Amino acid sequence: MYFPHVESTQDESLSTALDAAINDKTKPLGSLGVLELLARQAGLIQKTTRPRVIAPAILVFAGDHGVVAEGVSAYPQSVTWQMVENFLAQGAAINVFARQQDVALHIVDAGVNHDFGARDGLIARKVGPGTRNFANEPAMTVQECETALEHGMALAAELQGNVLGFGEMGIGNTTSAAAIMHKLAGLPVAECVGAGTGLSTEGMLHKCRVIEKAVAQHAHVSAPLDVLATFGGFEIAMMAGAMLKAAERRMILLIDGFIVTAALLVAARLQPSILDYCVFCHCSNEKGHGRMLNELGARPLLHLDMRLGEGTGCALALPLLHAAVGFLCDMATFASAQVSGKDSLVDAPMEAGGSASRSPLAGFRS
Amino acid sequence: MYFPHVESTQDESLSTALDAAINDKTKPLGSLGVLELLARQAGLIQKTTRPRVIAPAILVFAGDHGVVAEGVSAYPQSVTWQMVENFLAQGAAINVFARQQDVALHIVDAGVNHDFGARDGLIARKVGPGTRNFANEPAMTVQECETALEHGMALAAELQGNVLGFGEMGIGNTTSAAAIMHKLAGLPVAECVGAGTGLSTEGMLHKCRVIEKAVAQHAHVSAPLDVLATFGGFEIAMMAGAMLKAAERRMILLIDGFIVTAALLVAARLQPSILDYCVFCHCSNEKGHGRMLNELGARPLLHLDMRLGEGTGCALALPLLHAAVGFLCDMATFASAQVSGKDSLVDAPMEAGGSASRSPLAGFRS
Repeated sequence: MYFPHVESTQDESLSTALDAAINDKTKPLGSLGVLELLARQAGLIQKTTRPRVIAPAILVFAGDHGVVAEGVSAYPQSVTWQMVENFLAQGAAINVFARQQDVALHIVDAGVNHDFGARDGLIARKVGPGTRNFANEPAMTVQECETALEHGMALAAELQGNVLGFGEMGIGNTTSAAAIMHKLAGLPVAECVGAGTGLSTEGMLHKCRVIEKAVAQHAHVSAPLDVLATFGGFEIAMMAGAMLKAAERRMILLIDGFIVTAALLVAARLQPSILDYCVFCHCSNEKGHGRMLNELGARPLLHLDMRLGEGTGCALALPLLHAAVGFLCDMATFASAQVSGKDSLVDAPMEAGGSASRSPLAGFRS
Repeated sequence: MYFPHVESTQDESLSTALDAAINDKTKPLGSLGVLELLARQAGLIQKTTRPRVIAPAILVFAGDHGVVAEGVSAYPQSVTWQMVENFLAQGAAINVFARQQDVALHIVDAGVNHDFGARDGLIARKVGPGTRNFANEPAMTVQECETALEHGMALAAELQGNVLGFGEMGIGNTTSAAAIMHKLAGLPVAECVGAGTGLSTEGMLHKCRVIEKAVAQHAHVSAPLDVLATFGGFEIAMMAGAMLKAAERRMILLIDGFIVTAALLVAARLQPSILDYCVFCHCSNEKGHGRMLNELGARPLLHLDMRLGEGTGCALALPLLHAAVGFLCDMATFASAQVSGKDSLVDAPMEAGGSASRSPLAGFRS
């Protein structure tokens, strides 16, 4: 199958120009902290010293998982389609946050075990009515996995904007994500498994045992796409495809929580440079997320003890991206204020009623 | 002088009602983490299960500090008025962030060593042309300190909205804030002193020595208002007054960085219940801030390695407050979706083309 090629964003001379532009702003050097890193990253992605956020969108991918038959979730599978209905009725957390942030929200049926019929606002890309139970057999066939990846690429190819957030809904998908993390990050299963929507300690132990048994059964599986097909979900594979295509198109990728990061882990094993395009929106409370972020060398923007999914972390982090590109494009520079003595540390003469154009801010430089 | 009385927001029955409202939303219990705490706090402050953010504003208080004569800042005093000019010309970071967040921004001359004349957009409340050098004598007289507090109270009394953020600008004010922290939190000076706008290690040691000498000289000073008058700044005192009045009016207070938190420390020693009204927007990179937040039992929302002041942390945290009240007011509830079996953990029957009103989300409850 065709695969996107993701270029590195590294560019020595643009990087230098971005540093200069950031340091030329009327503020102490480095004082905007993480926002300065984010502004630099956005500039490198967009190949400009004046990056902009245009028509940001969040895609929420929903899918069901055969492995729920093993009792790995506190909640029944029907909650997946019920929550899709809630998204369509504008009632979920992501609907509220996306409205507040003026970000377009698209809901994708990647493989929910429910017949929605033709519905306004639902993008129908159902690969199948949920995956198979990977405790018994591979979750997807190679063909199904490729179909999911291709749907994801096609969706990302259609978007008009330059920022794409990823969200998901799928009862059982923390089990799938944990198995992927174990296989691709090489961490013990126990470090990959968390409470999901709210398992007890006993429930988590059972979830571990289910995964351990399944990975023993599929011990030969190691290539990223084979891991994805064997343990993944339709929504996870579709996200991975959309991520690869969006990065190829040099979009900024907003990465949400545990499941979205597992999809990225697959994509990053295929195209490591995709990490250059990722804004890690938050560290969720799902146990394995922090470790998976470490594995990717990621520094998440927010730490809010959330564990909801749906792309909620993306919506909440978006204002920080706006702030980062906003300060870089819209703050006054020492240059625009016609500052003379760049390295002056002495008092400039005070003028009564001075206007901004006559106000040297030289002293604020180091 | 008159002092506001700040009531505790504690209310057992409202708290129970808020918990019920939060838990009734279509999401796993507790899955919005810190946003749930924030929603509950906003409800208690506003005495309602449906809190709202109305006409949020940020006040930026600017003042100069006599102690800069001791060489405690990397930058000359003139940067204070130059940055005020930058605020008025819409060129500073806080201007960019406030515009993005649609929050009203007001700049207050609390005591800058500069004659601005009558200027559009500048609220003139100058107590004096900067404080005295507290290395030699108290920074303010008792009368000056009271005037600053009263101006702050009056400003907070005039605001129409229900959310007030605090920002500041004043070369030398981390030295003032560190001295206040040392006196009121009882922590060693070395733990209170940071790099400010960018001191070297040697500069920080000098700053420590200046403060240690000054506190030895004013060893008898211990009452909060005496500490404020002796070591504070006009902008710090005016903020403390505005905070007290805003809390008396049951507004939500957005607390920014090190200097704003020092002003709050004074206010909290006078009216401890003020902490019920405070949203701690971020933990700054200024060394003492984390410790001062601990002292106040505060948990900051953002950790972005910022150290800019100006109220920038308030503007960046405001979307999280919007998100908190937004989910509480606007998300679907299990009740509004006419859910029947509250504690059902079994699969609900699947229906083709079900609408939201017919979609039981019971399974998502614990």
